[in-house]
Amino acid sequence: MTAEPAPASREAPRARFRPPAVPQVDVRGFWGSRVDAVADKTADILYERCVEAGMLDQLDPDRPVPELRIPFMSMSPAAVTSGKPTFTSGTVTTQMFWDSDLGKTIETAAYSLYRKKNPELEAKIDAVIDMFAKLQQPDGYLSSWYQRMQPGLRWTNLRDCHELYCAGHLIEGAVAYYQATGKRKLLDVMARYADHIDTMFGPEPEKKKGYCGHEEIELALVKLARVTGNDRYMKLAKYFIDQRGQQPHYFDEEALARGSDPSKFHFGTYEYNQSHKPVREQDKVVGHAVRAMYLYSGMADVATEFHDDTLRVALDKLWDDLNSKQLYVTGGLGPSDANEGFTADYDLPNETAYAETCAAVALAFWANRMLGMGPNRRYADVMEQAIYNGAISGISLDGSLFFYENPLESRGHHNRWKWHRCPCCPPNLGRMIASIGSYMYGQAEGEIAVHLYGDSTARLDIGGKEVRLTQTTRYPWDGAIGITVDVDAPTRFALSLRIPGWCRKASLKVNGEAVDLQAVTIDGYARLDREWKAGDSVALDLELAVERIHAHPEVRQDAGRVTLKRGPLVYCLEAVDNPISLNRVALPSDAPVDARYEDGLLGGVVTLSAKAKADATADWGGTLYRTEPPKSEEVAIKAVPYFVWDNREPGEMLVWLRGG
Amino acid sequence: MTAEPAPASREAPRARFRPPAVPQVDVRGFWGSRVDAVADKTADILYERCVEAGMLDQLDPDRPVPELRIPFMSMSPAAVTSGKPTFTSGTVTTQMFWDSDLGKTIETAAYSLYRKKNPELEAKIDAVIDMFAKLQQPDGYLSSWYQRMQPGLRWTNLRDCHELYCAGHLIEGAVAYYQATGKRKLLDVMARYADHIDTMFGPEPEKKKGYCGHEEIELALVKLARVTGNDRYMKLAKYFIDQRGQQPHYFDEEALARGSDPSKFHFGTYEYNQSHKPVREQDKVVGHAVRAMYLYSGMADVATEFHDDTLRVALDKLWDDLNSKQLYVTGGLGPSDANEGFTADYDLPNETAYAETCAAVALAFWANRMLGMGPNRRYADVMEQAIYNGAISGISLDGSLFFYENPLESRGHHNRWKWHRCPCCPPNLGRMIASIGSYMYGQAEGEIAVHLYGDSTARLDIGGKEVRLTQTTRYPWDGAIGITVDVDAPTRFALSLRIPGWCRKASLKVNGEAVDLQAVTIDGYARLDREWKAGDSVALDLELAVERIHAHPEVRQDAGRVTLKRGPLVYCLEAVDNPISLNRVALPSDAPVDARYEDGLLGGVVTLSAKAKADATADWGGTLYRTEPPKSEEVAIKAVPYFVWDNREPGEMLVWLRGG
Repeated sequence: MTAEPAPASREAPRARFRPPAVPQVDVRGFWGSRVDAVADKTADILYERCVEAGMLDQLDPDRPVPELRIPFMSMSPAAVTSGKPTFTSGTVTTQMFWDSDLGKTIETAAYSLYRKKNPELEAKIDAVIDMFAKLQQPDGYLSSWYQRMQPGLRWTNLRDCHELYCAGHLIEGAVAYYQATGKRKLLDVMARYADHIDTMFGPEPEKKKGYCGHEEIELALVKLARVTGNDRYMKLAKYFIDQRGQQPHYFDEEALARGSDPSKFHFGTYEYNQSHKPVREQDKVVGHAVRAMYLYSGMADVATEFHDDTLRVALDKLWDDLNSKQLYVTGGLGPSDANEGFTADYDLPNETAYAETCAAVALAFWANRMLGMGPNRRYADVMEQAIYNGAISGISLDGSLFFYENPLESRGHHNRWKWHRCPCCPPNLGRMIASIGSYMYGQAEGEIAVHLYGDSTARLDIGGKEVRLTQTTRYPWDGAIGITVDVDAPTRFALSLRIPGWCRKASLKVNGEAVDLQAVTIDGYARLDREWKAGDSVALDLELAVERIHAHPEVRQDAGRVTLKRGPLVYCLEAVDNPISLNRVALPSDAPVDARYEDGLLGGVVTLSAKAKADATADWGGTLYRTEPPKSEEVAIKAVPYFVWDNREPGEMLVWLRGG
Repeated sequence: MTAEPAPASREAPRARFRPPAVPQVDVRGFWGSRVDAVADKTADILYERCVEAGMLDQLDPDRPVPELRIPFMSMSPAAVTSGKPTFTSGTVTTQMFWDSDLGKTIETAAYSLYRKKNPELEAKIDAVIDMFAKLQQPDGYLSSWYQRMQPGLRWTNLRDCHELYCAGHLIEGAVAYYQATGKRKLLDVMARYADHIDTMFGPEPEKKKGYCGHEEIELALVKLARVTGNDRYMKLAKYFIDQRGQQPHYFDEEALARGSDPSKFHFGTYEYNQSHKPVREQDKVVGHAVRAMYLYSGMADVATEFHDDTLRVALDKLWDDLNSKQLYVTGGLGPSDANEGFTADYDLPNETAYAETCAAVALAFWANRMLGMGPNRRYADVMEQAIYNGAISGISLDGSLFFYENPLESRGHHNRWKWHRCPCCPPNLGRMIASIGSYMYGQAEGEIAVHLYGDSTARLDIGGKEVRLTQTTRYPWDGAIGITVDVDAPTRFALSLRIPGWCRKASLKVNGEAVDLQAVTIDGYARLDREWKAGDSVALDLELAVERIHAHPEVRQDAGRVTLKRGPLVYCLEAVDNPISLNRVALPSDAPVDARYEDGLLGGVVTLSAKAKADATADWGGTLYRTEPPKSEEVAIKAVPYFVWDNREPGEMLVWLRGG
């Protein structure tokens, strides 16, 4: 019944890399404009949509309890169980997961408020926080759903009802709001709630042996432990990880206790929520994609904090499985809308790809946390791939419209929404973009790792001493990266710079002197271990060549096809630039592809141009099938980065082009 | 309000080609074994399934009225409106369209009984016919649904409830049973019902101006008119055709009379049932595929019988639209399951193709009826394409299992069913196969057209004189066709032999003397107009070359792909013959393809073999994406005719192979 103890001790002397808090990093350039879009538009939009959706009616204890409004009849069975309503009319509803969306909205607002003062928004968020504080029960419990909509049912259906998931997102929001504004009201509220949860769940005989059907609380408790220094939260996070999938199965017993038949679980298998077996025995990425990524993120945090190599081994098997068989080239994942998740190896349909924005965002969470165990481009490359493609494709350039599904092929009917009945993605992406600085760096005893490049200034912590790093670069459009170091006094530490796996040619100089990359590179990071003085400069040059990418031959949907990539960016064709049916186009393997920065286009992007072949239609007349192959004609094509698609006139889009 | 009169007069002297009745043609060879499978297995299976489904409980007036069992809750909205339940449990139900399935089952049994004595089945069918006779009301009305399940509601919802559609299929069954067994009880019953319908619908002020939401009654009334010689049925068929889509719209008025909002029609547009405009103004094939084909079949019959060129012009526009933009290479049609029908031009997805068996069968109905206006391979080629591929793929070789959807690509999870909750397809295909002889020939004043070739003996009628034609051939496996003529006395008539459009090389001899094909060929038929004597022989040789077929470049799903065809047969790869992921295979344009008859395989088929290329996987390791193109390796491939797929171990199947 109780979880197996973690074999590794927390006392081992190995490094733990911690991401910087948002206030430690100011971004400019590429990320600066994206963070500004979130701060200027998205953050306010998220709050307004929460209000429109009725979230505050469900939350505010001073308002009458709204009638239960979940039009199950018009929800798919999957929607009912997954809690993702897909109803056809009306945006106002009540949902068991509203607290999570408020939590992510608070987190996005927090980072945005740090970026730009916004007293109106800050007042609104403070008011929401007051509602949570007022709603909280004396014992610390806090849930707008179970206190207002379904009183008396708390802790009766962890499998389906997102109870701890909501707590987790509120904890993340609380930590962010505290870090960004210094206000600790919500942090204290959530710490009390976490204390209550700690009294409810654990190995002790009197406690429940449960865990959430939708993982999230695990990684949130790690954040809470780090910011409060309270080790109990860390231990509770580990408990939820260790207990998951143990026998007798909690979800079976819980269902029986509810008087329902465990075998009637809508998704049939507990693979859906990754509780089909203990996490250390899992070696295949399965089920609901976001849940899986959140679980692995929590596992990575616990592996880091506890130096738990049994978790690390499992995580590496899962990482290999995802990256060798189940990941879109865009960093999107979870091809099926039926389970919002994974299907079969190499099954990566392009037009029907679900590839939920939340899943790519969550992959970035996982990859970033794998880097807690030390810099390794095996993880950082994928983090960059997901962030620059399948994640930020989820938001329009102006920060006002959102994708939930991120297909790699479209006939033009797939366009970003103003809002979604299940608003999980916009705030998830909003908070990721607005906190991009914490993905760029890792800080540990005597070492700073630079995972992502971008024009920015960071104030990092090396054993209590502040190290200021200023990156000057036009990355990802240009591969020249200048880094200046600023310290109050000469300080010895290792500065580890990621040399991306996609980069064929890189050069590195310190204070003008060339460094032998081969000699200093470990796990794909150039490690510059020296005493750094104020004004020291590092010049890193990464060649951004245009590459043709081919998929494994077992990926049937991509057979005979090729996609274009430059640096971290995957490219696509859009109808607005290419007035021809895109599947008529074939890109010869020897056709030169030119990269050009276009200042006026889509806020400034590097486009790719080539002379390709197209199947001619002129000589077909009314013929639908014939024995003569189509004639070929030359056509000029122009590709744009995938993440900017659908920011102009809607039309066909294609990532995987026919090869030639 | 009343329909526009047909401009053309029925008195014009032009020929009308009538198909022979089933007893006029005995088939052997390829079709002989298929008809035997239907007579030996399918006919009995159809009856048994009708019983299991509860059809007789709904029909038999001597049984208690069954409770209304249509689990709407588990039906999709489309299913509710289209009357195609897709519920998940239980096969016993009550349905508004059960009479149609009994009608088609009776028709299949009729042809089967002509083929082979089966006293047990004949007794069962006679009993069913007795039930219909006993149920019929004094006024002639006959519907198991409206008399037993929804009494009092007759003629209140022609749009959705298949009332006249059921009558039509029962009429077809009655005509067939009379022709095959000489028993006229059901024919008399249905004639009385048709008389009643004639009193209910028509241009006269006191009559309803309606027509059925699911076309079928039109072509059935033409059959009834031909066999009874009663012209009123012909005129009523023409009325239903002429009235369709006229304003004010009958379905609007009917809905209002029911107190329901016409705009709430589930499928939104009346294109769904082809009543969006008068039929003579229609030039685009739209909506539910089977409904469309049944309508056009009725239109073709009326165009033939009334020499109505305004209908013929509309039909040719519709024919061009289907054949130039919306037809699968298999002769399948209707790519979408949402409306069981048509979507957009050139939208022909392979794996998700709906391509209902009934639709390909119904296309054969339409094409066959276009030939009523005279032999023309423009129609006969497509009839052959549909019959040999997308239609007979719907039944297993032994006649016991059935496809409803006929995709052109499968991962092996798509297999024939024992039965289907909506059993429309099995009896539709069963009756077509068992009556294949009536598709092979057309007979008119002074002319016999041979539309399809197959080992057979036909007793045809030329102005009251019998002409016996014996075809000796292994077609479609071999292109050598011998035809011997037998007449009681020398008789002058034109024997018109179809020279298929796919045939590059054909030769023709009469009594050993070569005929100049060019000189005698009209509309793709070699017309041998002479005095024929007993023993005259015709030798037609059609080259059956293996062809590579390419789709119009706008068909995005087939871009860069090719399929193999030999004579009328489209080929596919199956996993059982090709142990490799089929999309790894590319067929070079210059690779020789060998055709070989394999006696022991699938009842004897010609297979196609070639040396192709395959993308190698050996050097990929755990890599999912890379810049180096896949290495190519040689692989031997073997293709089988599409219609025999899924008769062995289930596995991947692919029609459109990557080109090379």
